[in-house]
Amino acid sequence: MTVASTFVDSATIEEQLATARAAIADRETVSRVVLTACGGSFANMQPNEYFLGNRATTLESVALNAAEFTSRGSSRVDADTVVILCSHSGTTPETVAAAAHARSRGALTVAFTFDPASPLAQEAEYVIAYQHGDGKSESYVGGALILRLVAAILDEREGASLSPAIDAAVAQLPVLVPAARAAHTEAADAWAFQTRREPLIYTMAAGSNYGTAYSFAICLLQEMQWVHSAAIHAGEYFHGPFEVTDVDVPFIALLGLDETRPVEQRAVDFLTKHTDRALVIDAKEFGLDGVAAEVQGVFAHLLFNVVLRTYADALADHRGHPLSVRRYMWRMEY
Amino acid sequence: MTVASTFVDSATIEEQLATARAAIADRETVSRVVLTACGGSFANMQPNEYFLGNRATTLESVALNAAEFTSRGSSRVDADTVVILCSHSGTTPETVAAAAHARSRGALTVAFTFDPASPLAQEAEYVIAYQHGDGKSESYVGGALILRLVAAILDEREGASLSPAIDAAVAQLPVLVPAARAAHTEAADAWAFQTRREPLIYTMAAGSNYGTAYSFAICLLQEMQWVHSAAIHAGEYFHGPFEVTDVDVPFIALLGLDETRPVEQRAVDFLTKHTDRALVIDAKEFGLDGVAAEVQGVFAHLLFNVVLRTYADALADHRGHPLSVRRYMWRMEY
Repeated sequence: MTVASTFVDSATIEEQLATARAAIADRETVSRVVLTACGGSFANMQPNEYFLGNRATTLESVALNAAEFTSRGSSRVDADTVVILCSHSGTTPETVAAAAHARSRGALTVAFTFDPASPLAQEAEYVIAYQHGDGKSESYVGGALILRLVAAILDEREGASLSPAIDAAVAQLPVLVPAARAAHTEAADAWAFQTRREPLIYTMAAGSNYGTAYSFAICLLQEMQWVHSAAIHAGEYFHGPFEVTDVDVPFIALLGLDETRPVEQRAVDFLTKHTDRALVIDAKEFGLDGVAAEVQGVFAHLLFNVVLRTYADALADHRGHPLSVRRYMWRMEY
Repeated sequence: MTVASTFVDSATIEEQLATARAAIADRETVSRVVLTACGGSFANMQPNEYFLGNRATTLESVALNAAEFTSRGSSRVDADTVVILCSHSGTTPETVAAAAHARSRGALTVAFTFDPASPLAQEAEYVIAYQHGDGKSESYVGGALILRLVAAILDEREGASLSPAIDAAVAQLPVLVPAARAAHTEAADAWAFQTRREPLIYTMAAGSNYGTAYSFAICLLQEMQWVHSAAIHAGEYFHGPFEVTDVDVPFIALLGLDETRPVEQRAVDFLTKHTDRALVIDAKEFGLDGVAAEVQGVFAHLLFNVVLRTYADALADHRGHPLSVRRYMWRMEY
């Protein structure tokens, strides 16, 4: 896929966000939020399902793959439902179909995509066009904006007061992102060199970081490196998956800052006792002291995404397999 | 783990089910159902999340790993919530803790376990003790009883009429199970011989059968065979995982009978075009003609479980690695 380096300016994005926020506030009967997308965009929804599931006092929330969402045909998608969708290019057929399905049921639809002229942007009632490519602001990437909208929904619908903290945290991303990336460049190179011939690398996390572990497994490793992988939920690790742990099985385990950190820590403690091939990335090292404590947990995944990308870039380099290579995607009909 | 072959008789189980059902009916404010457990028991919850998500017109439902559930500490677990838990032995610490957490919030708790004297059975308000081991009835295994309770909840709380069809289908399991097993014995042996040296086998499904694919990946392959695996959601396959498809990568793909079958079929069509190493198991061959069409979809997972176990037994045999072997589980503190 060609990466465009033109994008919507930040003022327009702020207007789009404000418009969607106001529309949700106006629909006073909203009682549930559905987050739906495919692949990496679906992974970006998962931390937000955690955010809502953890903080909402009345709102229901669910995250579903877009094909699963449409197929289910639940009667509980209606005028009281906000359906948040995301497709990077805005062309993902399943996500466009999900938007059409949601609108046909009277749901309020908000789509995230970088292309405001894409089919998804046209199908959804409201669109928030994020930045990507050269010159983008880290404060205006998709994941940051979805998090801001969800915080706004919690504020508007439930009288929470999360937006000030989330918005302030997102505003720090242009500083936090390059710092986190730089802090891991050397470690990423060493890890990638050591790991370059591995046919399989597991990832592990829980809570709001599970989606990031999932994204790394299915997009970076399986899709872009043809390396076998699975994202293991840290709470599930001891109930099956831990039996594959061995001295020669590489894992990437995340230690986040949300309420599930003890679940992740327990898994990491076992993992590191039984193998030296565990790469543990701890959000405590992301320098989030300037982020309000109450939102550090749900914010950290945005940094994990960036840091893990540094490891993927290094792995691609040492394997001589660029992240842009595909054998099926965009090369044939499917 | 030693498998007990004593179990609660069917009349007692029917009483327990009726008691739990009546308690849920009596609590008129019930608005959500949480399904929570770990590992294989969590996998057994997932088809029921689909059942509720697909059929409920008012009830909210969510399935969560038990450690994740407790850690989240959502304020939306309250007197209006039914929390359904399952632990085979009833000793899983995270699931026992989840029951305690749910009760402390005033939720109505129903636990499934084979041991009615277990910690989980004592912690939960209501218990349904299923059968397992030698001499059990296939109509009284855990998965069948959870499905019956969920159908009853849909009937009691929403005026659905699903229990007659589900109960009648479950009553046929003592005939359907051995027939499905026998129909696959020869194919399982051939597949297992061909697959015996594979270090990795993927599984794939969607909808109400995703949990079965997940269970096979984490319990049968990773835990009991030390074979690497991941359960791929068929709707996610084209958004990353399909890039690992190759002529020498084995997959087990399920074709179910619920609303997501077209999603599974699309993935199977691609998969089988690009590899001969795909084992496709189609629920159309399970002989479910005697099961009401409207519940065949959510019922099929009970047969997939049995059929897949036949493949696991054969694989264990050809690999000389009994399903009972563990290196960590039950052998150390963790």
